[in-house]
Amino acid sequence: MSKGPITALDWIAADWGTSNLRVWAMGAEGPLAEAGSGDGMGKLDRAGFEPALLRLIGPWLPAGRVTPVIACGMVGARQGWQEAPYRATPCPPVAAGELEAVATHDPRISVHIVPGLMQSRPADVMRGEETQIAGALMLMPEFDGVLCLPGTHSKWARISAGEVVGFQSCMTGELFALLSTASVLRHGMAGEGWDETAFDAGVAEGIAHADRLSARLFSLRAEGLIAGLSAEAARSRLSGLLIGAELAATKGYWLGQEVALIGASRLAGTYARALAAQGVGARSLDASACTLAGLVAARGAPASAPKRRI
Amino acid sequence: MSKGPITALDWIAADWGTSNLRVWAMGAEGPLAEAGSGDGMGKLDRAGFEPALLRLIGPWLPAGRVTPVIACGMVGARQGWQEAPYRATPCPPVAAGELEAVATHDPRISVHIVPGLMQSRPADVMRGEETQIAGALMLMPEFDGVLCLPGTHSKWARISAGEVVGFQSCMTGELFALLSTASVLRHGMAGEGWDETAFDAGVAEGIAHADRLSARLFSLRAEGLIAGLSAEAARSRLSGLLIGAELAATKGYWLGQEVALIGASRLAGTYARALAAQGVGARSLDASACTLAGLVAARGAPASAPKRRI
Repeated sequence: MSKGPITALDWIAADWGTSNLRVWAMGAEGPLAEAGSGDGMGKLDRAGFEPALLRLIGPWLPAGRVTPVIACGMVGARQGWQEAPYRATPCPPVAAGELEAVATHDPRISVHIVPGLMQSRPADVMRGEETQIAGALMLMPEFDGVLCLPGTHSKWARISAGEVVGFQSCMTGELFALLSTASVLRHGMAGEGWDETAFDAGVAEGIAHADRLSARLFSLRAEGLIAGLSAEAARSRLSGLLIGAELAATKGYWLGQEVALIGASRLAGTYARALAAQGVGARSLDASACTLAGLVAARGAPASAPKRRI
Repeated sequence: MSKGPITALDWIAADWGTSNLRVWAMGAEGPLAEAGSGDGMGKLDRAGFEPALLRLIGPWLPAGRVTPVIACGMVGARQGWQEAPYRATPCPPVAAGELEAVATHDPRISVHIVPGLMQSRPADVMRGEETQIAGALMLMPEFDGVLCLPGTHSKWARISAGEVVGFQSCMTGELFALLSTASVLRHGMAGEGWDETAFDAGVAEGIAHADRLSARLFSLRAEGLIAGLSAEAARSRLSGLLIGAELAATKGYWLGQEVALIGASRLAGTYARALAAQGVGARSLDASACTLAGLVAARGAPASAPKRRI
């Protein structure tokens, strides 16, 4: 990690979500340094963004010239630093010519934000994932199929000829967090253990009986009270039930398709396992690598380069 | 309301839930006085129950004799005053001979708790609702059909010949509370308004596409961001989606059956409207009246009385 100005600094890549900010000092060959903080969009008011950014990248900036900063994520939401209006699908996931310029005070930086994507029918939005999708297409230029990005609000995106043709969000991650920590089910779910058999059973039940989800959830509590269901089995089956229900809701996306997963390895692993149980083999891509590659694409990969149609 | 000892006091009826305690001074002809507090089971440790009860009923108690107290609800849970083990269905909703006696310090009271009900397959439990069901059968002794008790964890109970034959819980109320106040959807749901058209649309969508619930939820957020969905329409459609999904999950209960609703009037009204849209007419019973009648039944209606088989 660099402690002072970085002479070879070309530009700054920034992944700025609701909870965290992560930045990379980029040179001609790739990242030279990396830093992060908890200054997510959710904790900052409008005037707080530039100082939060400078706290991390200020020491890297050479004097006497302007360093470009390309940021993706919730920093571009309405309640973020500056709104970067959604681009409408179908479209390439990012377009270097359509970044949102942000007015800054420090003359050493020039900041641009990658816009999210929207879809009119059914109504849907993403912000941040479009950059990971662009990165996945940098890493797999010929990819034609479906990308799944598990997370708080997981996304399924249909990709064809370098464009996002359509997408679907599911609240699976947020439902799991709320149900396992804030609902009556929390009483039977303490701890961190994992029970793969219970997860598999949950997936099977969730996908076969997705229309009974609201009824099946309470049975986790009842089985804890009267049948001795363990905390780890309950947590694992809850995860399976919700992922199974998501697979039922998104069957039109993954059935018979080439699927690739982008996400934190443990979470993506649960989706890969659930998909494998439906006979779908999915390769996995590292989320950070996709984000960084997507920011590189947003910085200005030529839109017409034959194998990098982003 | 009485300020001092009540000479005509026969016994005390108590509805003791997670959040609240409500008591009635009962005479030969019915309630003589009523009181309540926020001393729910969730706020008390084991030693706190008797003082909490005496704060409300102490002033009513005549000296020199023992007054029976019959309590229902979460007071009988494992983490309550004293556990009243579940009775297994099929069985009458309450049985006067199977109340749980509680050891007390004050010689003026004798406390008994109404046990909840359990079902092994699918695993399910209720605690408190069994008393409302018993009350409903006091009010409608010939009832044969399905009782629906909307609430945090709504219950559907199949009733035949005075017995609970089977039941099903759904987490609908808790899901609505979590999603509308603690999830990303809260941003588009401020306020208290209600949009009946949006509710009806949500019910129709929820019942027709219950297997897509987790995907349809996020569209409420997306429509707020890109299609101007109002806060009241979003809240109403969320309620409709969840109730519609509950109706899909419980179709085996209500389809072609006589249905009666027990619950707070506004919530029961939304269920009645959703059921009416499926061609099911449901009568509504007042929840407090059912609780009180059920406690009367628990106090000792003769189990063999021909029209009061409780």
